[in-house]
Amino acid sequence: MSGLTHFDDQGAAHMVDVSDKAATDRMAVAEGRVIMSPETLALVMQGTAKKGDVLGVARLAGIMGAKKTADLIPLCHPLPVTKVALDLTLDATLPGVVVRATVKTSGQTGVEMEALTAVSVACLTVYDMLKAAEKGMQITGIRLLLKEGGKSGSWSAK
Amino acid sequence: MSGLTHFDDQGAAHMVDVSDKAATDRMAVAEGRVIMSPETLALVMQGTAKKGDVLGVARLAGIMGAKKTADLIPLCHPLPVTKVALDLTLDATLPGVVVRATVKTSGQTGVEMEALTAVSVACLTVYDMLKAAEKGMQITGIRLLLKEGGKSGSWSAK
Amino acid sequence: MSGLTHFDDQGAAHMVDVSDKAATDRMAVAEGRVIMSPETLALVMQGTAKKGDVLGVARLAGIMGAKKTADLIPLCHPLPVTKVALDLTLDATLPGVVVRATVKTSGQTGVEMEALTAVSVACLTVYDMLKAAEKGMQITGIRLLLKEGGKSGSWSAK
Amino acid sequence: MSGLTHFDDQGAAHMVDVSDKAATDRMAVAEGRVIMSPETLALVMQGTAKKGDVLGVARLAGIMGAKKTADLIPLCHPLPVTKVALDLTLDATLPGVVVRATVKTSGQTGVEMEALTAVSVACLTVYDMLKAAEKGMQITGIRLLLKEGGKSGSWSAK
Amino acid sequence: MSGLTHFDDQGAAHMVDVSDKAATDRMAVAEGRVIMSPETLALVMQGTAKKGDVLGVARLAGIMGAKKTADLIPLCHPLPVTKVALDLTLDATLPGVVVRATVKTSGQTGVEMEALTAVSVACLTVYDMLKAAEKGMQITGIRLLLKEGGKSGSWSAK
Amino acid sequence: MSGLTHFDDQGAAHMVDVSDKAATDRMAVAEGRVIMSPETLALVMQGTAKKGDVLGVARLAGIMGAKKTADLIPLCHPLPVTKVALDLTLDATLPGVVVRATVKTSGQTGVEMEALTAVSVACLTVYDMLKAAEKGMQITGIRLLLKEGGKSGSWSAK
Repeated sequence: MSGLTHFDDQGAAHMVDVSDKAATDRMAVAEGRVIMSPETLALVMQGTAKKGDVLGVARLAGIMGAKKTADLIPLCHPLPVTKVALDLTLDATLPGVVVRATVKTSGQTGVEMEALTAVSVACLTVYDMLKAAEKGMQITGIRLLLKEGGKSGSWSAK
Repeated sequence: MSGLTHFDDQGAAHMVDVSDKAATDRMAVAEGRVIMSPETLALVMQGTAKKGDVLGVARLAGIMGAKKTADLIPLCHPLPVTKVALDLTLDATLPGVVVRATVKTSGQTGVEMEALTAVSVACLTVYDMLKAAEKGMQITGIRLLLKEGGKSGSWSAK
Repeated sequence: MSGLTHFDDQGAAHMVDVSDKAATDRMAVAEGRVIMSPETLALVMQGTAKKGDVLGVARLAGIMGAKKTADLIPLCHPLPVTKVALDLTLDATLPGVVVRATVKTSGQTGVEMEALTAVSVACLTVYDMLKAAEKGMQITGIRLLLKEGGKSGSWSAK
Repeated sequence: MSGLTHFDDQGAAHMVDVSDKAATDRMAVAEGRVIMSPETLALVMQGTAKKGDVLGVARLAGIMGAKKTADLIPLCHPLPVTKVALDLTLDATLPGVVVRATVKTSGQTGVEMEALTAVSVACLTVYDMLKAAEKGMQITGIRLLLKEGGKSGSWSAK
Repeated sequence: MSGLTHFDDQGAAHMVDVSDKAATDRMAVAEGRVIMSPETLALVMQGTAKKGDVLGVARLAGIMGAKKTADLIPLCHPLPVTKVALDLTLDATLPGVVVRATVKTSGQTGVEMEALTAVSVACLTVYDMLKAAEKGMQITGIRLLLKEGGKSGSWSAK
Repeated sequence: MSGLTHFDDQGAAHMVDVSDKAATDRMAVAEGRVIMSPETLALVMQGTAKKGDVLGVARLAGIMGAKKTADLIPLCHPLPVTKVALDLTLDATLPGVVVRATVKTSGQTGVEMEALTAVSVACLTVYDMLKAAEKGMQITGIRLLLKEGGKSGSWSAK
C-alpha cells in the first residue's frame, strides 16, 4: 500500500518504527487562518491595543497544544520539542487572523504534526474567544509551509 | 468590551462564571474538510474498501479529541459529553475528505468547541496518515453548522 | 448488530448517546491478580511490614488510573467519580497479590470500566515495582464482580 | 532490600536514577488475552469481516495507551517510544482475543511497562466494546514475552 | 483516626465516598505570592506596561492548572468547575507578585484544592518566566482565604 | 528586554529555542514547606508510625507531578527526567512538613521547574490530606536550592 506508512502489510494501523533513523535537527512551519466579519476583527484589534488580548491567549494555547500532539494524533511519535513559536497577525483584507507556527526538535521524526497542531489549537482558541460575537467564523487554510531535516530533506509549499 | 465574555472589566482573561446558568440539553454539529490530490484520495478509498482504514483511525481520534477540549482550549469549561459521533465521507469533487461531528451534553455551557475540536483533530489525523503521500494537503472550512440548547437558543449556519 | 452499541448502523465507532438516560447512582466492583513466585511475594510482605510499600504505591496508582479511564478507553463517557477505593491483599496460595476496586458515581452511564481500569493500573504498578526481582509475573483474572444502578439493574459474577 | 529498586534505603518510593545508564536500543514484547463466550467472539468476527471493527479500535487504544505509560505508572521513567505495534487475533479455542504488543525505544530504561500497558489498554477496550453483550468476560495472561537491550540484556518468557 | 478522611479504617488511602452528599454551589478563594528583588519586579512592570506580559501568561496557566487538579492531587474528586478567575497584582512593598484565585462549582465536594492549585501553577509560571533574571525568588504564603457551600458551611482565614 | 528570554522582540511569549544547546547532565534541588498546627502535625506523625501514610501519598504525587511539568507550565520544554526523588520530613519547630525534591535529566534545558513543580504538588497533596483537620495551613518557602549543569553552570541558594 504505497505511501501509507502508518499501516502494516495487513492494513493494521501502527506507529511506524523509526528506531533506525538518525536523530537530526528538524524544523517545520505551518499556517492557518480564522475568517471573521470586519466587526469581529475590530473587537480583536481593540483588545490588542488596549485590553482583552485574544491573540496572546491563542498564542499560548498553540504553544501548549504543540506539546500535546502525540496525545492527540494516534500514530504520532512523542518527541521533545526544542522550540515552539507562534506568530498571529490581523489581516483586514481577509478579514481575520493569520496564525503561523514554527517548531523545532532534534529527533528521529519530523515536527510537521506539531506545527499543524499548534496552528489548529490557536485557531480554535481564537474562535472560542470570539464566538460570543460571531458564531459563523471559519477556520481555513491550515497547511504545512516548510519542512527541514530528516532523510527526505526539505520541502516547501508551492 | 461588548461580545468578548472571556475578559473581565480590566481585560484580564478568565473562565466565565456559568454557575447561575441552568443545566439544559445541548447539541452542536461542526464540519471541516481535508483537500488532497485525486491520487491521495484514491489511497484512502483503497484502504476503506480493503485495508488500512484511514477514516476509522481519524474517527476515533476525533472522538477522543472531543474529550480533551477543555484541556486544549484555555478558557473552555470542562463538561461531561454524553454523545460524540463523527461522520467522515470521501468527496471526489473536492477531492478530499469531509468530516462532520455531532456532540451532546446536558450542562451549563454549550458544546460548540467540543464539536469543532473533534473535527480539527480528525482532520489533523487524516493529514498525518496521508502525509507520506502528499505534504501539500490543506485543512479547510472548519465551522459550526448547528447549535441547540442554552439561553441563546438554536443557531444554524446560513 | 446486536449487542455492540459502540457502532452505528454503518459499523462506524461512536460514543453512544446517553443524553436521554437518567442520572442514577451507579457502583461497580472489579478484581484482578498478579501471580508471582513465593520469593517475590516475600519481598512484598517485608515491605508491607517494614518499609518499601509496594501495595501503597499500587493502590494510589489504581485510584489515579480510575480518573483517567475516559482518556484511555476511546468510546468511554467521561464522568465524575464520587468514590474510588482499592483493596490489595497478599495471597500466599496464589502466590501473589489480589486487587479489588470499588467505584461509584451518580451519572448516566456505569462505572464498570473505571473499576476495571483501576484494577489494571494497580496490577501494572505491582509488576513495575517488582520486575527487577521477577520478570515472569502474570497479571490475570481481571473481571467485573458486581455492578449496580442504571436501567439494566444489578449484575454479579457467578 | 534486594530486588526492589523503586525504594531507597529508608523504603521511600522514588524514580530510580538512570542518568548514568547508556542510551541503548530497547525492545519489549508483551501479551494478554480476553476470554469470552463463543457467541461474543462471533460478534467480533462479524465486525471484522463486515463492519464494527472491535479489533481496530482496541489496537489504536493500545498504541495510544503505550504513550501514556509514564503518566499511569507512578515510578516509570518517561521515554519517547520509536515504535508501537499491536497484533490482535481471534482464537476460537479460548474462545477470545489474543493481544500482542511490540514496543521499541532508544533510551536509558526498558520498555517492558510500555508493552504491558499497551496490552492492558487494548484488552480493556475489547471488554468495553463487548460488555453490552457479555459482562462476564475475563482479561487474563498479561505477561512479558521478550525484552532486549540494556545492561541486563535479553530475557524471554519460558 | 480523627480528621483524616482520606484513609479508611486500615489506614489505606482512598478517594472519599461523596455519593451521598448533596450537590450544592461551592466557592473557594486562595492566595499566594512570589517574592523577588526590586529589579526583577521592575522587569515585570515594564512587560505589563508595554510588552512581554508575564502576568497574562501566569493567569492563563493558573486557569488551566485549576482544570488539572484531580489529575495532580491523587485523592481529589474530579469535578466540572463553573468559574475560574485569577487576579495577579504587583506589590512593590514585598516586592513581588500577589496571586489570588476564585473558583466555583456546583457539586458534591468543595473547590479548595482547585483554587490552591490555580495559585500554585500561576506562581510557578511567574517563577519560570523570570528565572533567567533571578533564580532566588520564593513562592510563599499559599493559603485558603475563603470557602463557601457544602455541609461544613463557610470558612474564612483569620 | 533583558533577562526575560520567554518573550521575543515584540514581547510575544514563546518557547525559547534550545536546539543549539548541548545536551548535558542537569540536576536541580528545590524545597518547600507546609506550616500547620502542632495538633495537625501530630496526626501526620501517628499516620507515619502506624497507618494512613500522608507523607507516602504526597511523595508519590510529587514524583508524578514532576512528570507533568511541561503540561502545567506553558513555556517549559518537555524533557524526559532520569531521576525524581522526594524527601519529606516532619519538623516540630515549624511545626509542619518540609519537602525537598531532586530531579535529574540529560538534556538541553535544566530541571529547575520540574523540581519546583514536584515540591508544589507534594505540598498541595499534604494540604489536601490534612484539610479536614485544619483549613488554615500555609504552603511557604518554595524555592530552588541548587542547580547544576548547562551553560550557565552551577547555582546554589545563599
